[in-house]
Amino acid sequence: MIDLIRKKRDGGALSSAEIGYVVDAYTQGSIPDYQVAAWLMAVVLRGMTREETAALTHSMLHSGEVLDLSFLPAKKVDKHSTGGVGDKTSLVLAPVVAAGGLYVPMISGRGLGHTGGTLDKLESIPGFQVGLSVSEFHRVLKACGTSMIGQTEKIAPADRKLYALRDVTGTVESPYLICASIMSKKLAEGTDALVLDVKTGSGAFMKKEEDAVFLAELMVETGERMGKRMAALITNMDQPLGRMVGNALEVQECIEVLHGGGPADLSELCLHLAAWMFYLGGASKTVAEGKHLSEEIISSGKAFERFRHMVELQGGDISTIDDPMRLPATEHRVNVPSPRAGYVTAIQCEQVGTACVILGGGRERKEDSVDPAVGIVVHKKIGDKVSAGEPLCTIHCHSDEQAARARKLLEESYEIAAAPPAHRSSLIHRVIHKGER
Amino acid sequence: MIDLIRKKRDGGALSSAEIGYVVDAYTQGSIPDYQVAAWLMAVVLRGMTREETAALTHSMLHSGEVLDLSFLPAKKVDKHSTGGVGDKTSLVLAPVVAAGGLYVPMISGRGLGHTGGTLDKLESIPGFQVGLSVSEFHRVLKACGTSMIGQTEKIAPADRKLYALRDVTGTVESPYLICASIMSKKLAEGTDALVLDVKTGSGAFMKKEEDAVFLAELMVETGERMGKRMAALITNMDQPLGRMVGNALEVQECIEVLHGGGPADLSELCLHLAAWMFYLGGASKTVAEGKHLSEEIISSGKAFERFRHMVELQGGDISTIDDPMRLPATEHRVNVPSPRAGYVTAIQCEQVGTACVILGGGRERKEDSVDPAVGIVVHKKIGDKVSAGEPLCTIHCHSDEQAARARKLLEESYEIAAAPPAHRSSLIHRVIHKGER
Repeated sequence: MIDLIRKKRDGGALSSAEIGYVVDAYTQGSIPDYQVAAWLMAVVLRGMTREETAALTHSMLHSGEVLDLSFLPAKKVDKHSTGGVGDKTSLVLAPVVAAGGLYVPMISGRGLGHTGGTLDKLESIPGFQVGLSVSEFHRVLKACGTSMIGQTEKIAPADRKLYALRDVTGTVESPYLICASIMSKKLAEGTDALVLDVKTGSGAFMKKEEDAVFLAELMVETGERMGKRMAALITNMDQPLGRMVGNALEVQECIEVLHGGGPADLSELCLHLAAWMFYLGGASKTVAEGKHLSEEIISSGKAFERFRHMVELQGGDISTIDDPMRLPATEHRVNVPSPRAGYVTAIQCEQVGTACVILGGGRERKEDSVDPAVGIVVHKKIGDKVSAGEPLCTIHCHSDEQAARARKLLEESYEIAAAPPAHRSSLIHRVIHKGER
Repeated sequence: MIDLIRKKRDGGALSSAEIGYVVDAYTQGSIPDYQVAAWLMAVVLRGMTREETAALTHSMLHSGEVLDLSFLPAKKVDKHSTGGVGDKTSLVLAPVVAAGGLYVPMISGRGLGHTGGTLDKLESIPGFQVGLSVSEFHRVLKACGTSMIGQTEKIAPADRKLYALRDVTGTVESPYLICASIMSKKLAEGTDALVLDVKTGSGAFMKKEEDAVFLAELMVETGERMGKRMAALITNMDQPLGRMVGNALEVQECIEVLHGGGPADLSELCLHLAAWMFYLGGASKTVAEGKHLSEEIISSGKAFERFRHMVELQGGDISTIDDPMRLPATEHRVNVPSPRAGYVTAIQCEQVGTACVILGGGRERKEDSVDPAVGIVVHKKIGDKVSAGEPLCTIHCHSDEQAARARKLLEESYEIAAAPPAHRSSLIHRVIHKGER
């Protein structure tokens, strides 16, 4: 192991066998934490070749179970997002794509830090079970084309152990390690194709677009090396996606989109991501055709029906899907008024996510529990005109006292100027995909 | 700690307080190995400022006891070598400089890898004790001006713990960490001045002169920041120093030098180092005057007398000093003949050191014991003319079988060409010292 640490320290590239040794021996406990910590720091500072990144992903993937979904009679596709604020597209995409004839076996995570997590959102539906066994997962997938569950102990155990070490040794922030962590878990789902939603902006982990593009290209190439069809969309996270931030609030907004409504940015992004999932899964000949298909599926009511069915199969109370007013909600509301008249020129989006965490809607530590009812409804977004005293957003909370810290953060997160912003970022900055569309 | 790891990872400089925290908390066991390992790797790859290096040295020095030798009525000086093959100058320097009126409190190490260690050489003198208590060390120093002992548990415990971690995490090779490790131990001796012998060449840890110069400048500046008078000599280690490699053999060669004889390179280097010790310790007005003083002390017999006295005070059998033929020796000798006539153009000096280790004269692991009697006598050095079959060197061993591997290494280490080498390296490449000489 010392030789492998030195090799990486001195800027060399490790062979697949050498990387396999590090991953396997560490997972089995035969290399100590301190040696792997030194190696990880050398990787952070020296980087990895594409071959090394693929080998690391491969070793981590095969450290555990890889689902065999070959019994399903159509292509399996999934989407992964690097995380943002109000980022709730999975709840829309899974039923849309399943209703279009593909399978969407979705293994998701919980929120951590300022970003939300799909599992927390689903669990705001009373009764919804995310901890299915593999056979239950198979049954739900077969019955309604999609199932959304949490990571099991058996999937990529190397990633769990490595991530825990990275978290306490300042070695999280490396595109190579992030790529291997994400891809090893996503490829364990046994999908044929994967669409990546790589966020960039003030609410994303990657503030700079060039970093997002670098990671996206790395993940696309790594997936392709493993025989998967891949595409990545670099999307805007300079402000919350849609209007709702908070678990039950976000489920409610997704139901709006599944009914053909909802905020324009959210529904637009969902249509694009679904279009790519259809295209990569072979359900449409072009991406444009995939987008039409998505629109039809939503307007026909099939997407909502599919979502309702999945919720039912996973034990959720469908009365809350039929009537979202029955989802967990707070009694109390606190408006955050605009201090002056003008235009919203920027939103410190990470602070909006942090405000939701402070309310109890997210986690500061893994072991924290979340409150499904709390959250923030965003009324004004970048470019919007506001008058003095008009609400910028509304906090859903249990009391004024509870809202105080979140309110301060939200007040600080809005920038209001006399003139509208000169430049408006596009929702989708670019698409990374090799070949036709 | 995670923030401090990140700061160094991202190329920032830590404050003295932050570095003090890392050293103290790690020594006390309140930061885990894996976090320090990641931090050390970040230091290796990002480097340190001069301020950080001084702060690290200071924290490591004060993690343990700093000797107070203020009761001694003259300046205290010492020398440190970064290690080489046949590098035995300490045994000459300590008595020469002590005989010149300064005190030389020398805390030395054992051999590790291809380089020898002063303690192992001293222990080849039957009865010699290197494990003196602090009060015994004081007593010997007071009585004969020098004492040579091993590192105690109480000196720089942070260095011991950090070094053990560096050794298994590929983080040894950093000039900043090497500087702090060496200087924290040497400054714990409570000396006023320190001369560094920084070796470069095929038998040194630093093969490239630029690396040796970089480390030397770092150590000189670090020592000066702590109020010590400092100088560093960058010296040649492209071939063994002197003719003897092996513990008792090297003691024998030092006795020759103390009697005014011995190989020219060894005695020349000893005179230069002693000259600098005298100069920095204020016993001579110039370095040149220090060199004359050294020559006089040797030719007067005072240096030998001082060495004999120290050996006696530390329990050594002085009959072996008076008659070096009584030092441990092997019965058996194996010559390594030259394969052809010509000139020695190069010696792979590290291999000569390794040959001695293989014979049992050094250590591959810390816990190995050493054989005082074995070793190598070098007859031909770079530039020397040889005839075919003439011995290049002689192995002192217990049998032909035992010598086989060492012999092969020695054969391979000599390069013999038809013409003499175009370029001959000087013994002292340069001197690093701020101010007059």
